[in-house]
Amino acid sequence: MIPQEKREKSYWFGLDFFRSLKTLFPLLYPGLEWALIFTLLTGAAAGGYEKVNYDTGMMIGKFYLYLSMKDEHGFWHTFWKATWWYLAQCALTALVSLFSSALYLSFRRNITRILHNRYFSNNVCFQLNTVDNEGIDNPDQRVSQDVEKFCNLLAVKVFPNFLVAPFVVGYYTWRTWHTSGGVGVGVIYGYFLISSIVNLVIIQPLTKWAGKVEKAEGCFRYKHVSVRDNAEGSAFYKADFFELRECNRIFNILLRNQAFFISFRAPVMFSQNFFAYFGGVLTYAIQVIPIFWMHSYDDLDVSKFAEKLSNNSFVFMYLINSFTKLTDLASSVGEMAVYSQRIADLVDFTKDAVLAKLWHKNSGKIQLPERNGYIMFLPQRPYLPSGNVSLRQQLLFPNLGDKRVASIVEDSKLQAVLASLSLSHLISMAGGFDGEVEFEWSERLTPGEAQRLSICRVLISQPSLVFLDEATNSLPVAMEKTVYELLKEAKISYISTGHQLTLRAYHDMILNIDGTNEHSLYKNEQNHL
Amino acid sequence: MIPQEKREKSYWFGLDFFRSLKTLFPLLYPGLEWALIFTLLTGAAAGGYEKVNYDTGMMIGKFYLYLSMKDEHGFWHTFWKATWWYLAQCALTALVSLFSSALYLSFRRNITRILHNRYFSNNVCFQLNTVDNEGIDNPDQRVSQDVEKFCNLLAVKVFPNFLVAPFVVGYYTWRTWHTSGGVGVGVIYGYFLISSIVNLVIIQPLTKWAGKVEKAEGCFRYKHVSVRDNAEGSAFYKADFFELRECNRIFNILLRNQAFFISFRAPVMFSQNFFAYFGGVLTYAIQVIPIFWMHSYDDLDVSKFAEKLSNNSFVFMYLINSFTKLTDLASSVGEMAVYSQRIADLVDFTKDAVLAKLWHKNSGKIQLPERNGYIMFLPQRPYLPSGNVSLRQQLLFPNLGDKRVASIVEDSKLQAVLASLSLSHLISMAGGFDGEVEFEWSERLTPGEAQRLSICRVLISQPSLVFLDEATNSLPVAMEKTVYELLKEAKISYISTGHQLTLRAYHDMILNIDGTNEHSLYKNEQNHL
Repeated sequence: MIPQEKREKSYWFGLDFFRSLKTLFPLLYPGLEWALIFTLLTGAAAGGYEKVNYDTGMMIGKFYLYLSMKDEHGFWHTFWKATWWYLAQCALTALVSLFSSALYLSFRRNITRILHNRYFSNNVCFQLNTVDNEGIDNPDQRVSQDVEKFCNLLAVKVFPNFLVAPFVVGYYTWRTWHTSGGVGVGVIYGYFLISSIVNLVIIQPLTKWAGKVEKAEGCFRYKHVSVRDNAEGSAFYKADFFELRECNRIFNILLRNQAFFISFRAPVMFSQNFFAYFGGVLTYAIQVIPIFWMHSYDDLDVSKFAEKLSNNSFVFMYLINSFTKLTDLASSVGEMAVYSQRIADLVDFTKDAVLAKLWHKNSGKIQLPERNGYIMFLPQRPYLPSGNVSLRQQLLFPNLGDKRVASIVEDSKLQAVLASLSLSHLISMAGGFDGEVEFEWSERLTPGEAQRLSICRVLISQPSLVFLDEATNSLPVAMEKTVYELLKEAKISYISTGHQLTLRAYHDMILNIDGTNEHSLYKNEQNHL
Repeated sequence: MIPQEKREKSYWFGLDFFRSLKTLFPLLYPGLEWALIFTLLTGAAAGGYEKVNYDTGMMIGKFYLYLSMKDEHGFWHTFWKATWWYLAQCALTALVSLFSSALYLSFRRNITRILHNRYFSNNVCFQLNTVDNEGIDNPDQRVSQDVEKFCNLLAVKVFPNFLVAPFVVGYYTWRTWHTSGGVGVGVIYGYFLISSIVNLVIIQPLTKWAGKVEKAEGCFRYKHVSVRDNAEGSAFYKADFFELRECNRIFNILLRNQAFFISFRAPVMFSQNFFAYFGGVLTYAIQVIPIFWMHSYDDLDVSKFAEKLSNNSFVFMYLINSFTKLTDLASSVGEMAVYSQRIADLVDFTKDAVLAKLWHKNSGKIQLPERNGYIMFLPQRPYLPSGNVSLRQQLLFPNLGDKRVASIVEDSKLQAVLASLSLSHLISMAGGFDGEVEFEWSERLTPGEAQRLSICRVLISQPSLVFLDEATNSLPVAMEKTVYELLKEAKISYISTGHQLTLRAYHDMILNIDGTNEHSLYKNEQNHL
């Protein structure tokens, strides 16, 4: 019912995910260029950060030491050293963010350019959006949003952690082992395991209800957009009461889903917070091992001992946090899996696409005119491309990239064609032929103006033959006549399809299809042109 | 160019914001009901949380005390106590979240219901979306998204902090004063002031570039959606190369904006991180005051002293954090200001709306038929309401809420009407008259089917008079004839507007408007019906 629904297709973290990465990595890293450089820089900055972070973590212990020794000189020495180290640490944080974001940009650029090139060749765009009804849903969303999310997750969330995680976990595990032996390590690993399992179990209903809320929110928005788009129709039908009842009904479903969602979220918040906070307490409990059981610190004086306590606490806490980061990493990778498979599907499709056929022919023979002419199609719905397109570009579409064509057609010719179809007002509306256009043509022009603008393109491009698919059905009869007179005058052959009987008057031959598999083809004696 | 642009209208944190709150608060709290109850519960839970948080903060000091005194009994006592307190603290966190979310739901329900009632009465919906071109943009967005964001920010982000912030800042200021005198308080307040100013200054370009990225991202998405929607037109025009060039051009603007954004973000991240991390160092530096300058702890033994150090550090850090929370609160309120004014504008408009006129009449006299007949309009674009609407509901629209009407019209009648317009296949497609419909009617039906379905409504409702605004322009000539024959048969008078000359054959009188302010009204002698 809403587009999102389609996305519930089961992409999951399995073999297909790794296969999709195999498809995408060569696109992300096309060679020795920015993406590779920023990967290395991100890794280096993330590694440097971990090193400095360890040093600053140990400084808290130093503060305990000097303050409890009442050593003011030592304290200020540590204070200034800490200031410098923190400056370094924050600089490294900023660098990790900068490099990983630059990596994200490089990824996105590399992958989008390739997708654009493939999407806009061999009729792939048309085939995906019009012919192919299964397989690749929402290709526009894949190229714009999915690529954005995939590159962001991979470069900013996954890579910086992924590159250093094994070393960090390894190092802090070793430090913990060194201080409190296998028991300490066991307690922390066990704690992580239990907390992961508990959180994983109680988060299940939350995920389900979050999806339902998202869907209900989408329905509610869609309903309001559709009410807005059809405000006139609704007013003609006097449907106020109906719309009120429907909007309230859909809103109530949303409210109900949200109520369930927030009820299931409470225990999850409780549990996640508890495991996080209690981790802090645990770091002291583990210290029982070296202090009371191993008697490792019996010969330390009390100030040295306070420093030791603080340092141990930092190491234990960091090990716990590293695990939490790994869990986050796993969930980022899981999220990424959806996008990478959606993009890889598109990449595979565009790679394999052969020259697409506009329609499946049954049988027959189509003979094109001998001379090397240019054929144009006018689709039923006038197409006015979006995005700051100038009037000249609209008139020369799709040739506006071609400077040669643009320079051949003189302004006086464009003016004359516009005038012949009563469109001269467009020149001032668009700020001249090359004025920067701030509006969307498809929103600003009436259906009739849009059809006349399409006809202008034909008169300017001067093809040998044009196919008109109900191309004048929004025009008054007199304007329709003008259009066909202008085509005749310009010596452009035309083939029209349409319901309007008035069309007959402008054609030499008529093919009549009556909807019951019957047809008749005959010469038209009443051609008025 | 994209809808978001409209939202750049200058809503700001000024008098208008407070005026908008004055408009909205009576809607949020319509009386002694859930919203009020959840406000009180949220405040109580947030207050309780702060109390328990202080107690758990002090426990870290206790760990230092007992561990450095080598008092294992004392340690385990504190450990279990801490466990219980942390359980309480996490329960309170969960309750704050639960109550504030429930408050959000109550707010949203109260305000949405009132907005729905006003939006769908006195033609307000039509006037806002079709007649009124300035003032209230995007009313659909205000009712769905803006209300959601406003209620969420107010209930979840602003209220829990706002209700307790003055007490928290006051209490921790007093505690800091008590420990380290005016100097300590001055250092922290000064630190907060400097960090706020620095961050405020360097964040300016970031906000600007974030806006540009947002807009460029919107343009890129819009371009891809429009390419998709016009894939057929584009294919007919062979516009692949054009689309590729345009998509790449728009994508390059986006990339450039993102590159600026991430470059400006690096110093901001550096500064924000530094002030946050260095705050930790500062909490030890302030301890210089009681230890070295005031000699407050000279007679404490070293274990007691370590506890004191830890407790002081917690108090100072918490005061710094409270200030950070206040800054977050200010930015949430600033964000909220935009939404509250947008919603209040809509509320004010709907309150003042008088019975809207469908169009501004010039002068003249409209005489309705004497008998108490029912008049129907068929708009140019068939309106098929969205959201799981059954076939029966579509056929009886807009009367589907009215059980009386639904029960009067028998299924056999509906079947006959559908059959007369060759729409019998809709019955199986929709799973019977009352089957749950999973698709959107407006997406599934062809334009011709949608027009025929609209005609079915007329034949079922049997009005005395129907206005047909180009209501048959997607139908073949033979079907058009059938439609008018059926209307005649059902003794329904009709007035049609249209371009098609074929329409003339079915009317007694013709009003001809030639587009040059001239018109002629005459009896039609060639009425074929």
